[in-house]
Amino acid sequence: MEMINAEIFTLTYGSMVRQLVADYEDVEEVNKQLDKMGFNIGQRLIDEYLAKSKTQRCSDFRETAEKIAKVGFKMFLNTTASVTNWNADGTECSLILEDNPLTDFVELPEQLSALKYSNLLCGVIRGALEMVNMDVECSFVKDMLRGDDVYEMRLKLLSSSTESYPFKDDD
Amino acid sequence: MEMINAEIFTLTYGSMVRQLVADYEDVEEVNKQLDKMGFNIGQRLIDEYLAKSKTQRCSDFRETAEKIAKVGFKMFLNTTASVTNWNADGTECSLILEDNPLTDFVELPEQLSALKYSNLLCGVIRGALEMVNMDVECSFVKDMLRGDDVYEMRLKLLSSSTESYPFKDDD
Repeated sequence: MEMINAEIFTLTYGSMVRQLVADYEDVEEVNKQLDKMGFNIGQRLIDEYLAKSKTQRCSDFRETAEKIAKVGFKMFLNTTASVTNWNADGTECSLILEDNPLTDFVELPEQLSALKYSNLLCGVIRGALEMVNMDVECSFVKDMLRGDDVYEMRLKLLSSSTESYPFKDDD
Repeated sequence: MEMINAEIFTLTYGSMVRQLVADYEDVEEVNKQLDKMGFNIGQRLIDEYLAKSKTQRCSDFRETAEKIAKVGFKMFLNTTASVTNWNADGTECSLILEDNPLTDFVELPEQLSALKYSNLLCGVIRGALEMVNMDVECSFVKDMLRGDDVYEMRLKLLSSSTESYPFKDDD
């Protein structure tokens, strides 16, 4: 697996966010844009994940969330998350990030307090899971840049189908 | 040194370039913007380079170019460049990239043939060297995305001073 220095990624991501903030007047629009960019990235990254992670097909959403937290975050950001706060029927959970490489050296100025700086990650998860036929919502509910004690992403399964990806002709 | 997967960086960089192309009407403006972003990134990355590379202070521009090619590119992009085509007085050279992680999976559509897709790298070099008091010009003169056989960056020393960085009070 090709690896590069994390700092150039962190700084490049920061440049991109700064550019979006400069180009869009509305912070909510920046949040949306980051999510959308992440979605496109996730649709590509899932191939790398499936090819390189050598994990088995997930049996349910609980296992999927664990794999994202322990294998996906490790593979792509060299960090891990913990999975907590499940709802009763196992369709919603939180990913708590122990470390967020995107936000090294970052401080949000007061006028950007509504910015979801790391929102790209939500889009990545959404995009990756869509490719394996899981339709999810994902959003940051806690953010250390906004004064919270952790980074918490809330993940909600909306629907899933049993078709497997990659689709095979002989299925 | 913190490392992350190269693919998420490549795809994030691609999203950023696409965003710039969408936001600016003029491709030349996108090239300038990429260079400017790179400049800011380079001003930060030089600290990581100086702290982690454990190399000695460069004695001249020839040695500086070699260090960028062999140590800097290795450290930040996990690739190396070769240094060639020196002019007679040792103030201009070319960096030939053997591999360019920024351009994996990228194809330029015809209407973007003037886009200097990897121009961020020129800015990074410019910004990093400015912090060690070397004023340089840097630009891509060959680009595989535009049909050339290699990636070639032309580096030109405009001026340099002998002050050392980081500046010490007792200098």
